[in-house]
This record gives sequence, C-alpha cells and structure tokens, in this order.
Amino acid sequence: MRIWEEHTHGMMGRLPTYLNRGAMGLAAGAAYFSEADSRFGANALRRYEYLREHDLCMTATLSSPQANRAASVANQADPFLAARIKEETNAGLIVRGCRMLATLPIADELLVYSGAPLRNPEQEAPYAFVFSIPSDTQGIRFICRESVDYGRSHYDHPLASRFEELDAVVIFDDVLVPWENIFVSHDVPRCNSAFSRTGAAVHMDHQTVVKNIVKAEFMLGLASLLVNSIGAEVFQHIYEKLAELWLNAETMKACLRAAEADAALDEWQIMRPAEDPLVAACILFSRMYPRMVEIIQQIGASGLVAMPTEADVRGPLAEDIKKFYQAARAEAFDRIPMFRLAWDASVSAFASRQVLYERFSRGDPIRVANALVLTHEDQLQRCAERVYEFIRQGRDEAFAQPSDDSVDG
Amino acid sequence: MRIWEEHTHGMMGRLPTYLNRGAMGLAAGAAYFSEADSRFGANALRRYEYLREHDLCMTATLSSPQANRAASVANQADPFLAARIKEETNAGLIVRGCRMLATLPIADELLVYSGAPLRNPEQEAPYAFVFSIPSDTQGIRFICRESVDYGRSHYDHPLASRFEELDAVVIFDDVLVPWENIFVSHDVPRCNSAFSRTGAAVHMDHQTVVKNIVKAEFMLGLASLLVNSIGAEVFQHIYEKLAELWLNAETMKACLRAAEADAALDEWQIMRPAEDPLVAACILFSRMYPRMVEIIQQIGASGLVAMPTEADVRGPLAEDIKKFYQAARAEAFDRIPMFRLAWDASVSAFASRQVLYERFSRGDPIRVANALVLTHEDQLQRCAERVYEFIRQGRDEAFAQPSDDSVDG
Amino acid sequence: MRIWEEHTHGMMGRLPTYLNRGAMGLAAGAAYFSEADSRFGANALRRYEYLREHDLCMTATLSSPQANRAASVANQADPFLAARIKEETNAGLIVRGCRMLATLPIADELLVYSGAPLRNPEQEAPYAFVFSIPSDTQGIRFICRESVDYGRSHYDHPLASRFEELDAVVIFDDVLVPWENIFVSHDVPRCNSAFSRTGAAVHMDHQTVVKNIVKAEFMLGLASLLVNSIGAEVFQHIYEKLAELWLNAETMKACLRAAEADAALDEWQIMRPAEDPLVAACILFSRMYPRMVEIIQQIGASGLVAMPTEADVRGPLAEDIKKFYQAARAEAFDRIPMFRLAWDASVSAFASRQVLYERFSRGDPIRVANALVLTHEDQLQRCAERVYEFIRQGRDEAFAQPSDDSVDG
Amino acid sequence: MRIWEEHTHGMMGRLPTYLNRGAMGLAAGAAYFSEADSRFGANALRRYEYLREHDLCMTATLSSPQANRAASVANQADPFLAARIKEETNAGLIVRGCRMLATLPIADELLVYSGAPLRNPEQEAPYAFVFSIPSDTQGIRFICRESVDYGRSHYDHPLASRFEELDAVVIFDDVLVPWENIFVSHDVPRCNSAFSRTGAAVHMDHQTVVKNIVKAEFMLGLASLLVNSIGAEVFQHIYEKLAELWLNAETMKACLRAAEADAALDEWQIMRPAEDPLVAACILFSRMYPRMVEIIQQIGASGLVAMPTEADVRGPLAEDIKKFYQAARAEAFDRIPMFRLAWDASVSAFASRQVLYERFSRGDPIRVANALVLTHEDQLQRCAERVYEFIRQGRDEAFAQPSDDSVDG
Repeated sequence: MRIWEEHTHGMMGRLPTYLNRGAMGLAAGAAYFSEADSRFGANALRRYEYLREHDLCMTATLSSPQANRAASVANQADPFLAARIKEETNAGLIVRGCRMLATLPIADELLVYSGAPLRNPEQEAPYAFVFSIPSDTQGIRFICRESVDYGRSHYDHPLASRFEELDAVVIFDDVLVPWENIFVSHDVPRCNSAFSRTGAAVHMDHQTVVKNIVKAEFMLGLASLLVNSIGAEVFQHIYEKLAELWLNAETMKACLRAAEADAALDEWQIMRPAEDPLVAACILFSRMYPRMVEIIQQIGASGLVAMPTEADVRGPLAEDIKKFYQAARAEAFDRIPMFRLAWDASVSAFASRQVLYERFSRGDPIRVANALVLTHEDQLQRCAERVYEFIRQGRDEAFAQPSDDSVDG
Repeated sequence: MRIWEEHTHGMMGRLPTYLNRGAMGLAAGAAYFSEADSRFGANALRRYEYLREHDLCMTATLSSPQANRAASVANQADPFLAARIKEETNAGLIVRGCRMLATLPIADELLVYSGAPLRNPEQEAPYAFVFSIPSDTQGIRFICRESVDYGRSHYDHPLASRFEELDAVVIFDDVLVPWENIFVSHDVPRCNSAFSRTGAAVHMDHQTVVKNIVKAEFMLGLASLLVNSIGAEVFQHIYEKLAELWLNAETMKACLRAAEADAALDEWQIMRPAEDPLVAACILFSRMYPRMVEIIQQIGASGLVAMPTEADVRGPLAEDIKKFYQAARAEAFDRIPMFRLAWDASVSAFASRQVLYERFSRGDPIRVANALVLTHEDQLQRCAERVYEFIRQGRDEAFAQPSDDSVDG
Repeated sequence: MRIWEEHTHGMMGRLPTYLNRGAMGLAAGAAYFSEADSRFGANALRRYEYLREHDLCMTATLSSPQANRAASVANQADPFLAARIKEETNAGLIVRGCRMLATLPIADELLVYSGAPLRNPEQEAPYAFVFSIPSDTQGIRFICRESVDYGRSHYDHPLASRFEELDAVVIFDDVLVPWENIFVSHDVPRCNSAFSRTGAAVHMDHQTVVKNIVKAEFMLGLASLLVNSIGAEVFQHIYEKLAELWLNAETMKACLRAAEADAALDEWQIMRPAEDPLVAACILFSRMYPRMVEIIQQIGASGLVAMPTEADVRGPLAEDIKKFYQAARAEAFDRIPMFRLAWDASVSAFASRQVLYERFSRGDPIRVANALVLTHEDQLQRCAERVYEFIRQGRDEAFAQPSDDSVDG
Repeated sequence: MRIWEEHTHGMMGRLPTYLNRGAMGLAAGAAYFSEADSRFGANALRRYEYLREHDLCMTATLSSPQANRAASVANQADPFLAARIKEETNAGLIVRGCRMLATLPIADELLVYSGAPLRNPEQEAPYAFVFSIPSDTQGIRFICRESVDYGRSHYDHPLASRFEELDAVVIFDDVLVPWENIFVSHDVPRCNSAFSRTGAAVHMDHQTVVKNIVKAEFMLGLASLLVNSIGAEVFQHIYEKLAELWLNAETMKACLRAAEADAALDEWQIMRPAEDPLVAACILFSRMYPRMVEIIQQIGASGLVAMPTEADVRGPLAEDIKKFYQAARAEAFDRIPMFRLAWDASVSAFASRQVLYERFSRGDPIRVANALVLTHEDQLQRCAERVYEFIRQGRDEAFAQPSDDSVDG
C-alpha cells in the first residue's frame, strides 16, 4: 500500500521525507546564504544534489532543550545544554550540546536549524547555525524513546509493524561539522529567516499537505469499510461522521489546489506554491487529525476491543472465531484484520503517537497562533480598515444630524 | 461599505441575489427542460434574460410545510396544505397551497422549486413543478415574521437598520401561473434534478462562497478592531481566536480558488466551477459562522452590554461618556460605534437571525450529511478499496505462513 | 409563571436578588468589619435589616473601568476615572469617578465593592471601600445600554417584555456616602476579602445555582414542548440533545444538594453551604448556557423564523395562519406562541443578552480559571502527591534492581 | 498506590469489582426473583454470600453478538449465534452460543445477564436468563483480545504493567448451568428489569462514580505534577486546563454526595442511593474522560515522545540523560518516570483502551441518550407543563384584548 508510505517510509531508508523537500528549498534559495559567504550557498546546493543523487533520506532537529523556560537558550544554567558552537577551526565548527526531537533518527542525513526565532543577535550567535551532516557523523548520539513497534506481525499491528519512525533527542559530543556542510554560521538574522526566505518552509508545507490528504483519505476509506461491514448506516449520526471525514479530506485538497493554482516564481526564480492556503491546511490538520481518530473509535466502538490476534485466527479456536465474529456484510476473517487496522489507527500506542505528531509537529498551538497573527498583520489591518470605514460613516452620519432628531423613538 | 451589500442587498431591490445566479444556471441548462417540452427551455432562458435586463432581484421558496413529518407531502391531512397544481388551463397552471420560508420576500421575482427530492413519481406529480413569477402576482400572499429592524438609527443598529431581509411563508390562493413562466410541470424526476443537472446548484454555491468570504473577512476585521481598541492582545487566547477567524476566511478562499481553477465546460457548454470544493465550503461555513459570532462575544465580553445609544452620545451626558468610555487606544466616540457594530453582529436579534440563516440555509444538518455521503459514494468506495487492498495483503501474508510460526512471542 | 421570576424580577422592584443574598452574607459576617471599626459591622447588619424589612431590591457595581489594561486602577491617566474616595468628611466619604456594569439599575439599593482584588495596599487605598446606598442618592448617574424590551406585547416577546433588567455604567459625581452606609473604608485587605470571609460569596453562589436550576429546567421543558409539537423525535440526535439538557439540570441539582448536605456553621456561627460544589456549578453553567441556547436553535431550526406576530394572528390572515401553521401534534395557535417563546429564549436580543450574562457574570473566563486554581492549590497539591508517591515507588524499584536485569527484552 | 487499584484490581484476583456490587444488589432485591420461583431469590442471595465470604472477584457478559443489526437476537442466521437455552434438564439449563465482551475475564465468577432489553416475550424467551457461575465451568471458553501489557517493567509502563484487565468474547459450548446458579429463566420481563428493580443498577453506578472520582483526581494530580515540573504555568491556557480537570472531579464528587444524601430505603428495605445524580455522573464521565486524556497530551506535548526507557536510564548514557533531561523544577530522574506515567495515561495502548472503556462501557451513546429520555419522560413532561402554562397565559392574554389594540406599534 502506498497510502502511508508517502509519509512514513524511513524505516526503508529510501524515500524522501518532507525534510528532503526542505533541503530542496534551501538549495533553491542558496543565493540567500551566499550573501553572507559565497561558500554557504554553494554548500546548500551541493548538499541537496548529493542527497538527491544518492537517494538519501533526511531528518532534522530544530529545537533546543529549555530546562528553564523563563530564560533564553543562552541563559540556561549550562551554556552547553543547548547545542552551540564551541569553537571554529580550519576544518569546520565544533558543536557541543543537545537538540530535541528528531523524528525518524534512522534517516541518512541530519539537518540542524532553528525552528523558533532567536532574539539576541549578540548573545545567541553561537546558537545560530544551519548545517546538514550524515547521521552517523562521529560524536552524534541519539537517545530514542521506546519503540511502539512491539514486534508483532503485520496482521496484528498492520501500521506499527511497518511505519514506526521513532523520535530521538540528539546529543552533539564535540562534533566536527566540516565547512562544506554549513549554510549559516554565527548569524542570528539569517538563521531565523533561512526557511522562510529561501522558500524551504513553503515547500515543506506543500509536501505536508500532500501527506495530510493521504491520511485523511485513509481515514475516510477505513471508516467507510467499518460502517459497511457492520451495517452501521442505520444510525443517523454515522452519516455526520462520514461527512466530517469527507469535509476534512476535501478541505486539504482545496488548499493544495489553491496553492498550486497560485504558484509563482519567487525571488530566486523558483516556482513556489502560494503560502497561505498551505499554512491554513497545516494548522487545520493539527485539529482535524485527533478528531478523525475519535471518529474511528466512535464507529468501531466495542468492536475495537473484541478482536483476536493472528495467533488466535490460526490456532485451535479458528472455527469458533469464524462463526462468532462474522458481521452483517463481512466474513469474520475479513472483519478481524479490518478492525485490527482500525485499532492500530485509533487505539494503539502507534495511533496515539500519530495524534501527538499531528497535534504538535508545527509547535505549540499557542505559539503557532501567535506567529500566524503576527505574520498576517497587514491582512488583518486591511480587513479592519474596511470595517472601520463602515463604522466611521455611521458615526459621521449621526453627528451630522441636527441634535433634536437624535432622540430614540 | 460593500462588505454586507454583496450578500444582503434586497432592501434596495437592485442587486442580484444568489437566486439570480440560480436563474442564470437554469437558463444555462435550459436544454434539459426542453427535453420535456420545448417551451420550458425557452421559458427558462427568456425569464433569466428578463431579470437580467431589468435588473430585478429574485427570491425563492423551495420547501413544503409538513404538519405531519411522518407522512409525505401528498399524504398530509389536507392535500392543499403544500402548494400543488389544482388544475391545468390554457392560460397556465392554477396553484393552491402553501410554501415555506422565502427569505427577502420584498424581491421582485419569486422562483418556486423543490429543495428536497420528491419520492413518488405518480402521487407527487401535482407537487412537481418549477416556475418563476413576479412576487406581486395576484393571489400570492406573504406572511412575514417580525422584522428585526426595530426602527433604530444606523448608529444604534448599524446592520439591522440596513440589511434586514425578512423571511416569509408564501400562500398561493389559486394563483394562475402562465405557461411562459413554467420550466417543469407534473414531472417528478426533472423537478428533483433541475438544479443539479442544469448547474444552477453549483452556480448558487459559487456565489454563496463569495458571500462567505465577505462575512468571514468582516468578522476578522471586526475582531481585529475590538482587540486593538481594548488592548486585548495581552491575553494569549486572543491570538488563538484571531487565528481561528483567519483560518475560516482562508479556508473559504482556498475552496473558491480551487473551484475556479478546476472549472470546466459542462454538458451545456457552460463554464462550471468544480463542485466539491464549493459544497465543502458551504457545509463548513454553517459550522464556522456560529463560532465566529461566539468569538466576537468572547472578545467584546461585558463591553458589549455597556454601550450607550446615539441618543446618549448626542445628549446631556455626552461629556461623561467621552470621559468614561475611552479605551486604551480608542476615543470613546470611536469605541462606542465599534462596539455597537459588534453588538449588531453578535448579540442583537439580527445577529442571531444571521446565525440561524447560516446554520440552516442548506437544510437540516443531518439531511445535508446524508445527501453528501450518498452523492459521494463512488469516492468513498475508492478510498475504501485502497484501504481494503492493504488489509488483504496483511491477511494473505498471515495465512501464507506455516502455522507454527504464527504463535505470539 | 415563576420560572424566570425567581431570577429576573427587578422590574417589579419587589423581589430580592442574589445581591440581597450577598447583603445577608455581609451582615452574617459583620464581625469581620467590626475588627476594623466597630461602626462598620453595625452598619452591615443594620443596612441588611433595613432592606429586608422594607422589601427592597439590591443591585451592585463591582468593577472599575480600565481604559489602559496594562496599568492598575490607580495608574490610569485620570485618577478619578475609576470611582475613588475624594475626601473624608464628618458626614461621610465623598466619592468621585466611574464604576462598570450594574445589572438591574432600577433596583432600590446599590452595593459598591471590588470584584477583583486590589494589589497595592498603599496606592490603592482610596479605591478600597464597601458601601451600600440608595440608588437615587444625589450625584449618582446611570448610563444604560439600549433596552432589549422593544415595546412588544407579551405574545410577541414573552420574555423580553417581562424580564429585561438593563445594564448600566454608574457615575459618582461627588457623591456623599454617609458613615452609616459604609462597611469598609481605605482598607485594601478587608476590601479584597470582604465577600469570601463573611460568607457573602457562598451565599450568592447558592442563590445563583438555584437560578441555574430554574433556567436549565425551563430550557428542558421548552425543548420537550418543541420536540413534541413537531414530532422531531424521529431524529436520533434529538434524544442526545434532550439528554444533554437533562444532564445540565441534573448536574446543577446535584451540586446544590451536595452543598446543602455539607453545610456547616462558619466562623460567625452562621450555617454556610459547602463552597466547592457551588463554585463548580457556577463555572459549569457559564459553559452550559450558551450550549442550551444552541440546542433550542437546533431543535427549532427554520420554525424559529417562520412565526407570525400577534398582529397577524389577530388580523385578517388569521384563517390562513390557522391552516398553514399547524404542526403534527399542535394547533397553529398553540404552536406559534411556543415558537415565539423559543425565539425569545434563543434568537432575540434578550436571548443573546442572557447568553452574555451567563458567560461573563463571574468575570473573564481566563481569570476565573486562574483564581480557581490559586484558591485550590492545596487540593491540587494533595492529588499531585498521591501520584508522585506512585511514581517514586516505580522509580525506586527500578534502581533497586541489579543493573544487568534492567535491559529491555 | 491505591489510586487505580480501586478500579483495576482483578489481575490480583482479590478485590471486588463493580459487578460484585451488582451481585450485592441482586441479592438485596432477591424477593423480586422469588416472585417467579422461590428458588431463584434464594440463589441470588446464596451466590452473593458465597462470593463475599470467599472474597471472589466477579465479571459479567451482558450483550449478544449481532452479525445482522437489522434483525433481533432471535432472528440471526444462526439461532445459536447469541447464547441461548438449548434445553432444560433436571440438573439445570444447557446454554449454547456466544456473548460479547467480558472485561477482566480472569475474574473468578461470571455473571450473565442482558444489558439491552429484549422485545419479544415469546420468541426471545430462550435468550432471557440471569445466572452466575464460576468462570472455569466446563464448556466456557474466552477469546481474549491482544493484551496491552507488553511485558515492560513498572518503570516503562507503570499502568499497563499493573492494571491491564483484558477483554474477552465468551463462548458457551453446551455449558450446564446448575439450577442453584440461576436467578431468571425463560422470563423476558424479569430479565429486562432485573437490574433496575432489584437496585443492582444503582449500586453498580454508585461504585462506578467512586471509580470516576479516583480517576479524575489521578488526572488532576498528574497534570499538576507535569505543569509544575516544566514551569508551564506561564501559559494562560494551562490554568483553564487545570480548572477543567478540577471541575470534572468536583462534578463527580457532588453527584456522589447528592446520591448519598438522598439515599432511602427501597421496596426491599435496603438503603439505596438516589439514582439520578449517579446516572448523570456516569454519562458525563464518558464525555469527560477522553477530554482529560487530551489535556494530558496537551500539557505533556512533545515531552511525551522524548522520554528514554528504564534500560536507558540504567545504561551507559545515564549521565547524558541526567544532564539533558532536567526540567525547570525537576531532576531528570524524577521527570522521566513522571512523563512515562503521563505516556501510559494518555498515549499508550493501555491509555486508549481506557478511553474506549469509559466512552462505551454504558453502551452506545445514542442508545444511552434514548434510554435516558424514555426513563425520564415524567420529569420532562413536568418541565414542559410549567413552560406551557406560561405560554398559555400569554396566548390567552392576547386574545382577551379587543382586537383594535393588537396591531404592532
């Protein structure tokens, strides 16, 4: 099945991720890096071509640990808690410290950049870098969370057994980052705007929305299968739930289509999709996905916790199971793997990990909302002015009248 | 201000409504009516041109009263409860009975058709018609609800005093509908599919989404004004609320853009926007709009019930008001009409009538969901098949293995 | 009907409000005021008895205008923006400035206190007072919002025509507050804790929950009538909506019962209901009420905007109306006033004003949540400790084992 | 920790479940069974005493498989799909067929009854029984779902490793149920009302609400720990989330208190808690619990997927972990098990299984709502009548006036 593969694929180490798409974006806007140092732009381009030609898979780590949230990255108790440039040598930068959450740590290449803006150009300069290096570079260590692939068969855990990606904290133990892997160094403004200016952010969002469509259609298809197998369409609310899943998928598709229809050449002469519909789609999806999972739970209901395992259906009770697990329009042996898939999409640890991923992959929702408003202030201002113009007319009209007409009724 | 005018305009009797757009759609697919009777297609075309050339405004009535919901329209206690053809004469049809809810009954022309499908081609034939006649045709009576324009000034009720449309029940007291106004007569299948087949439905949805964008941007602008005037941006949740309003507007815009990007010639050689993004946008908006009104209430809060009227600001307490109603960044006399507008958009009877309109203008949400699923069965089936293919692989894989390997760890 | 009267009554100027109940609470804990000045306790007691014996109705104003939200009440551009003590004389205090939102300004007596805590005992002392005076005391001016009683009959606006309370901003124009009306003066700590320490807050919450029950049962009864009249029980979701209304009413009743069952003598030897269930009920209701109104809209649907007025049902179209407005199980002339009541409970300006009142009468939801957490820190701490104890056991157990056993599977 | 033990306990096979409480209720109302056959009442009493004296743990199976939901239990393709009485012998009943979902199948004793009412006294008589037998009775087979205890340590999976209960389908392969274990046989009315009439239902709900309080306080304590460890209280929305958890716990406590305060002797002279507050609490909790889990996810956020396992914290990277996983106010080695607990409460398969349990343990939400409305029709009717009385007054008042006064302003 290609459904999840487009998104989760890394275990095979072959397919490009949305971060590969980001690398493409950085290469597209390489001229932006060259403004600081002509080598940097060339690096971004060369590194992308290397990944592409060798068909390598990329992950990234973009946030710093913040033991103390009230202090900036440079003012934590230990200045090397967050990864920073320890020294600069002829060979490259020596980096020491920690970075949070790389999803798919088994990827070939690791992109290191800042997801949240740095505020202090002076003090935070040692934290201001963008580079891309092989994941197995000496001195890099990954501390992974527990895998949610618990070693079960494809039958029992159809998704987790295939598509678990893992997440990891990344520790840089005096890692030498060669100059040829570096795109930004000691440069807070360029570090902060690298992804927006080059277009990498939009390109990544574009791939994210493609992934969203695939997941939304997967959930829609799964829900349709469940409904049909148990004859649940006798309940009126089932139509509302299917309709909601359809609306989710359709919204994602409309946003993608709009972004593509309004694509245009950017300042680097690269075709760039329109940004706003993609940003909207990404934020909307972080709210839609948990609800989709809830809908699968509501449709599957107690059927989700009644299903036997592969060992059972191939064991001595197979005949009992065949008889007692049949559904209105599905043989037991069709229905069981269908509900096992629904389990792995809505109940298993893998399922909930997906929910967490979708909820938070863009960052804390409050900060996402904040950033959205700040980057769209002009647009809000234009809307506000149109309304204010209307208000002003009413106000002026009132005071233009002679006062004795003004009394109510 | 053009903001609301694009949607609500009828009081001036000048601007076309989305039903004018529907009339255009019926004219575009006039050939469909001609298949039954060559006069009918010509009527649809001529009537549309007449409206267009005389710049007339159109409303419609599309649902039948159902005193007893358990019985069909033909099986109510009184066969003339719902408007039906009483007889056919050389001059036209004589229609008697009642139709529900025409919004904007002051419109010049009244389109009469069936919003919900009729089920019984024989029995319900007398209820199966589409025609368009002047609202002041003899025998037509409108029973209006109470107006929510309570006679206040533009200052006090900035929206209700300008944009109230009214709603009415329409009674046909043996009305003669001339043949030249008739598009469908005694024809259940054609009555049911008139709007979808001709494209009228899509064209109306297109205009509805334009209206949705205008309203969403109005709410976004209004919220921005309120937030700015009272300095509410110190509260983190305010960003979430502004972001939500922006997402609503952006979703509408993406759907419109996608529908236009994928417009294509239909079977009548008319350019027709893609249907699915418009349908999605219309259904989504029925859920978004009540939430937008809630957001305005949450931002305006007690400020919404503290505002004086025009009589006050022009009366003896004007100086007191000027002093005590000032806000962080707004003079009292700017802030008051701003909050009065917020009141009329979120608290007044006009505001709630708008909520009801948006909630129900497409029909009962359960029926809307039901119809959506039924008209998209093919698409759901395709999604289901892709998922089923994946399930089948896992199932076959399990049973292809020798049985002794199958036992869980 | 007594349903709404228990809550809204003031137009008759006769029935006690929940602020009368607050005055009772202040009198009950009068000893607390006497700790500062023996006259103050006696004042609280005497004033309460005066209200009670003369059957007077009380309102209150408890918040200060804050043109600049970033500054405290004492640091606004004008020190007399918020009402403050201008001077102290033998006769009493001279008060100048403004206070926000008194609901029911037509009440006989006005209680003036601080709903939000003052922070600075020195600087804010002139704003730290509690007193109770007749509403028509010289120098007091009310600036009212527009009335939502638009002068219609009981038939057309069954609620607004009877129960509109109005809201007003109160301006003190050098008002002399005699010493015998004063309970707290120039005393920030006592001003802040007056209502909690004396028990007035709990007593007011108790009456509020009684009001909540009455409103919840009113909505439940109204919904039942609507459902029955149009035979809406054929829709499955109707049961969910009725069940939700029932759950709301039952939750309020359980909280009231629990508070009464655990009532106990307080430090002033007065029977005081348990506080937590009442606080919970009050906060919950601010979320329940808007949803109840939404449910009435969802059940009433387009029926809410189809109803004629009293003028119509008594006018020349009465026979038409009788015929065409009948419902499955209701005569038209029964159904119309039922839907008019539903309109006034869910669509009219009166209805939305009720929504605003319930949403915000306890204050800004963020601040309410904040205060709730801060006043229940001990309880949260106890819950946290029990969980931490469990965590510690697991942690100690892990490290107590020899290290070679610790490796996963 | 006692927190979860009160609810989940069965793995130790020692503690009574809420079904033991049900057995107590059946014994209390034993006289109801004796009305049909004097042995049956004695059986209910004796069986309960046996469980109590031997400290045995009870589970139950109460629903029938319905391959075809459009047909009743007696009209499925195979009459022995659902467990039914195959024959009656001197020794007892011979039962053949299947029953759905026993939670905690490792319990000592199995109670078999009907959760959903049977409709047809004649045809469904063979399905109308209540009995209680040891789980290891010959011919009983359990088909369990996959365990969500994946064999990890208490450190890694603090909840699943201790409290997994399992769920099972129960197959009766010609099981002999001795007469002394039978409370109802071939008796549709008594089978349907066994739990409500005897009081068993209320007693079970009482224990369920105790469990709900424990879970709600656990979630509140866990959230408090998380917030404190990461210093999350700088975000305003955190207070809203803590407040929501507190409101949930408080609502459950108020309902329990109200039910106990209004307990009264029932028709069997047994003290029975008031039913309505408990029913409300149970239904409310099915909506609260999924939201509580969501709140834990929202507070824990990416911290939930960053945590290492026991093997890591005891392995060679322990020093790295100690350094990089510290939080604002928690050492790494305190914080990690805290987040592992949060994972097992909100992300793991165990966590989602709890969500499913709470969502559906009372049955399908639509049916629950339906049953609630039907069993409270009298109460709804009383509320409706009070509202109708108010409507009637307004209506009569209108028509009592002379007609010329009736025209709107």
